[in-house]
Amino acid sequence: MADSEALSSLAGDPVAVEALLQAVFGIVVDEAIQKGTSASQKVCEWKEPEELKQLLDLELRGQGESQEQILERCRAVIRYSVKTGHPRFFNQLFSGLDPHALAGRIITESLNTSQYTYEIAPVFVLMEEEVLRKLRALVGWSSGDGIFCPGGSISNMYAVNLARYQRYPDCKQRGLRTLPPLALFTSKECHYSIQKGAAFLGLGTDSVRVVKADERGRMVPEDLERQISLAEAEGAVPFLVSATSGTTVLGAFDPLEAIADVCQRHGLWLHVDAAWGGSVLLSQTHRHLLDGIQRADSVAWNPHKLLAAGLQCSALLLQDTSNLLKRCHGSQASYLFQQDKFYDVELDTGDKVVQCGRRVDCLKLWLMWKAQGSQGLERRIDQAFALAGYLVEEMKTREGFELVMEPEFVNVCFWFVPPSLRGKQDSPDYHKRLSKVAPVLKERMVKAGSMMIGYQPHGTRGNFFRVVVANPALTCADIDFLLNELERLGQDL
Amino acid sequence: MADSEALSSLAGDPVAVEALLQAVFGIVVDEAIQKGTSASQKVCEWKEPEELKQLLDLELRGQGESQEQILERCRAVIRYSVKTGHPRFFNQLFSGLDPHALAGRIITESLNTSQYTYEIAPVFVLMEEEVLRKLRALVGWSSGDGIFCPGGSISNMYAVNLARYQRYPDCKQRGLRTLPPLALFTSKECHYSIQKGAAFLGLGTDSVRVVKADERGRMVPEDLERQISLAEAEGAVPFLVSATSGTTVLGAFDPLEAIADVCQRHGLWLHVDAAWGGSVLLSQTHRHLLDGIQRADSVAWNPHKLLAAGLQCSALLLQDTSNLLKRCHGSQASYLFQQDKFYDVELDTGDKVVQCGRRVDCLKLWLMWKAQGSQGLERRIDQAFALAGYLVEEMKTREGFELVMEPEFVNVCFWFVPPSLRGKQDSPDYHKRLSKVAPVLKERMVKAGSMMIGYQPHGTRGNFFRVVVANPALTCADIDFLLNELERLGQDL
Repeated sequence: MADSEALSSLAGDPVAVEALLQAVFGIVVDEAIQKGTSASQKVCEWKEPEELKQLLDLELRGQGESQEQILERCRAVIRYSVKTGHPRFFNQLFSGLDPHALAGRIITESLNTSQYTYEIAPVFVLMEEEVLRKLRALVGWSSGDGIFCPGGSISNMYAVNLARYQRYPDCKQRGLRTLPPLALFTSKECHYSIQKGAAFLGLGTDSVRVVKADERGRMVPEDLERQISLAEAEGAVPFLVSATSGTTVLGAFDPLEAIADVCQRHGLWLHVDAAWGGSVLLSQTHRHLLDGIQRADSVAWNPHKLLAAGLQCSALLLQDTSNLLKRCHGSQASYLFQQDKFYDVELDTGDKVVQCGRRVDCLKLWLMWKAQGSQGLERRIDQAFALAGYLVEEMKTREGFELVMEPEFVNVCFWFVPPSLRGKQDSPDYHKRLSKVAPVLKERMVKAGSMMIGYQPHGTRGNFFRVVVANPALTCADIDFLLNELERLGQDL
Repeated sequence: MADSEALSSLAGDPVAVEALLQAVFGIVVDEAIQKGTSASQKVCEWKEPEELKQLLDLELRGQGESQEQILERCRAVIRYSVKTGHPRFFNQLFSGLDPHALAGRIITESLNTSQYTYEIAPVFVLMEEEVLRKLRALVGWSSGDGIFCPGGSISNMYAVNLARYQRYPDCKQRGLRTLPPLALFTSKECHYSIQKGAAFLGLGTDSVRVVKADERGRMVPEDLERQISLAEAEGAVPFLVSATSGTTVLGAFDPLEAIADVCQRHGLWLHVDAAWGGSVLLSQTHRHLLDGIQRADSVAWNPHKLLAAGLQCSALLLQDTSNLLKRCHGSQASYLFQQDKFYDVELDTGDKVVQCGRRVDCLKLWLMWKAQGSQGLERRIDQAFALAGYLVEEMKTREGFELVMEPEFVNVCFWFVPPSLRGKQDSPDYHKRLSKVAPVLKERMVKAGSMMIGYQPHGTRGNFFRVVVANPALTCADIDFLLNELERLGQDL
C-alpha cells in the first residue's frame, strides 16, 4: 500500500462531489418537488413492468457510468415513480410533501448516523427524548418511556412483547414453551400487523381472539368481555387488548374508556394502535375521539401518516417508568454499550430496541413541528376533517356516489355507481356488478395518471373506494376534481 | 368549509418551498458534506447533554418559527452532530459519505413512498428485485428470494423465523407451545442480535447454544457437532446454525464449508450473518474468506456498512424458491393486496415482511453501483484491506502499539500502551491499568474532536481499541494521523 490516493476519486474531490449533488438536487426540486406536487402534472406515469424494466436499465454491471448517465438515471427514477406528494394522491394513509419535514430528512441522510449511543448521535438522542415527551404529553402522560420504531407494525409487536414480558419476565430467557397459552384481543377491524406480530413473536395467530365490531367498525366492549370469558374457559390466559384509534379502512375509533374499564377489571395490558388516528390528539376539536387513551399502557402513533412527516416516523409510547423497554429488549452488548464511558450511559438508548443500528426518525418531525408550531399542526388536522366533510357533502349533491357510511374521520368510503347501475339496487346482480366498478376505474385513473384512490372489499361489502383526505396542501378544488374525474372515468359504465 | 386555501401556506407556495429547500441544501452542502468530510475540521464537537439541550432549544411550542430561525436550527443540528462521513471517524462498522448513495437517499426522501405494492412503488419494486438478484449472484445463487430489512438484526430474526416455519409450518397459527424445545447454534463471537431475536421470537435466549470460537474468533466446527449432540441429548430439536462472516469486534470469518458440512449432516438451516463481511464477496482477491457461503439457506448482508450505502441498507437473501418468505410472513390484507388488481399481483412484495409500510432501501445502493460499477466497488474493498494492512505494518514500527492479533479483515484491534506502562508487562496490575487507557484516550479524542475510535473489553481481554478501516475516502495520511494522534493524546499516561 504505497498509494495514498483516496479509495474513491470522487469522494476525494470536494468540487466534483458538490457539483454532482447540486445537479441531483436541481433535478429533485424540479421533478419531484415542483412537478411532483403540481396539480397540472400527472400523479403517476403508468408503465407495464416489462417496459419499465427496459426504460430503467436496471442491470448492475462491472463498469461505472458517467455523471451524465447517472443524472439521466435520476430523472428516470423520479419520472416513473408515483408522486405521493401530489394533491391527487389519495391512495394510502399518507400523502403530501411537507417541506420542513423533507428538509429534516435530507439533513438526516447527510449526517447518516445510527441512533443507539449518545457518542455518535448526541443531538438525536436528546431530540428523540423531547419529541417522545411531547407526544406522551398529548396522550395525557407526564412521564413514561418510548422509542421510534421502523413502522407501526413493529410498534404493535413491541407492545405485545412488552406485555407478555411484564407478566412473565422468564419468557425472555426460557421462551414460551413454559408458559400457559396466552390470549390477546383485538377487533376484526384491527390492522393486520396484530396477526403478523402474533405469528412472529411465536404466540401463533390462534392466540389472537377477534372481537366483534359494530356497524361503524368500532370494537364492541361487551363482546370483548365475552371473548375474555371464553378464552379463560378454554384455559388460555388473557394478557393484552389492542384497541384501534383510526382503523385502516373505515377510520373508526374504538371506545377507549369502555375498553379500559374491561382491561382494568381483568388486569390486562391496554395497547392502543393509534398509528393512523393518533395525530388527532393535536386537535382540541376532534381529540375527544380518543377519549380514554391516557388509560393505555402503550400507544403506537405514526406521524408519517396524517402529519406527513415522511416514511418512517413511528413512535411507540409507554406509560411505564420502570425501564421495561430496556429490561425486555436489552442485552448489554459490551462493544457498544460500554459501562466505563465518560458520560452518563443512560443516554445510550439503543438497548431499548431489538434492532442494533437504528435510523434517526425524530428530526423530520421535530423540524416540521418547530416550523408549524402545535397550532399549525392543529390547523392541518382540523382542515383535513373539514375537507373530508366537504367531500361528503358534495357527494350527497351528486348522482352516483353512495357513501358506505357517514365518516367520523378523514377516510371517506363510498361506491361510485355508474350510470348503467343507477336505480338498479334491486337487481339480483347489482352488488356483484357494483363490485367490479372500482377495479376498472382504478385502472383507468392510474393509466391516465390523473389521480390515485384505493379500493377494497370489506366484510360482506363488495369493492368500494376509500379516499384518504390527508395531504396538507389539499384544497376544495382538488376535491371537486376528484368527483368530476370519477364521473368522467365512469360515464360509460 | 368555504375556505379553499391550502392546509399549509408554505405547501401551497412553490416559490417559498423551493427557497426553503435550496437554503437548507446549501447548509447541508457546506456544513455536513464539505466541512463534515474535511480532515481539517472536527469529527465531532462534544457538549455535555445539559449544555447541548440548551444550545438546541429542543422544546416544541404552540407557535411556529420564522424561516431564519429554522435555518439556524438546521445549522445547529449539523454542527453538534457527529460527522460519520469524516475520514477520522473509525468508530463503527460504517464510515464515509458516498455522494451517489447520498443522491439516491435524497431522491428516496423526496419521493417518500412505501415499498409494498407495484402500484405506488413501481420503480422500486423492480429495482429491489434486480439489486437482490445481483447480491444473490455474488453469493453464488442463480435463483432465490430476498428482501431489504430495517437492519441486520431484523434480517437475522427473519432467518430464524423462516427456519422454524419451514420445519414447523403449524407454528405460524398455533405458536411455539405445541412444538418441542428448539435449539439454534452460533458462536460466542456472534452479533448480539441472535440473542435478542431468540427472545423476541418467543424461543427464549436459552434456545441459543453457544459454540466455542478459536483464538482468532472463528467458530470451531467440532464444538458445533458437540453442542448439537448435547442439545439432542437434552431433548431439544436443533433447527438452525447461524455462522458469522465478519464478526463485530475481531472481524473473524467462520469456516463456512466445515459448518455447512455439519448442517448438511444434521439437516439444519444454515444462516450466514454476513452483515459486516458480505461486501467482501465483491473482491476477487478476498472473497475466499466466505468460501462455502453458497451452501447457506439464508444470508444477511448490510451494504450500509463496508459499501457506505447509507443507513439502512440490509438485505436478507434466500436460496429458497418456494415462496417461503411470503408463506411465512404473509397475511393477505385485502385492503392493500387486492387480488383483482389490473396488474400481476405477484409484484406486490409487501406481504413478504412483517412490516406494513417499508422504506425504500434499494435506490441508494443501485445508484452508487451504477456509478462505480462492480469494479469500482471491488477496488474499494481491496483498498480497505490494503489500508488496514498499512495500519498494521505502521503499528509494528512504533513503540506503544500492541496488536490483539494479526487481523484477517479491516477490524484492527490493538492496545495503545502508554509510556508509563511500556516494558511493564510482568507487573501484576499491568492488565488492569492497560484496560483503563482506552476510555481515557476516547474521552480525550472526543473532547478534542480529532477522531473517534471504538473500544471494548472482549472475553478475558481488557479494553482495547478497534479501528474500522471502512471509509472509502481514507488515505495513508489519515492512518498516519490516527497513530500520531494516539501518541499525542497518550504521551502523559
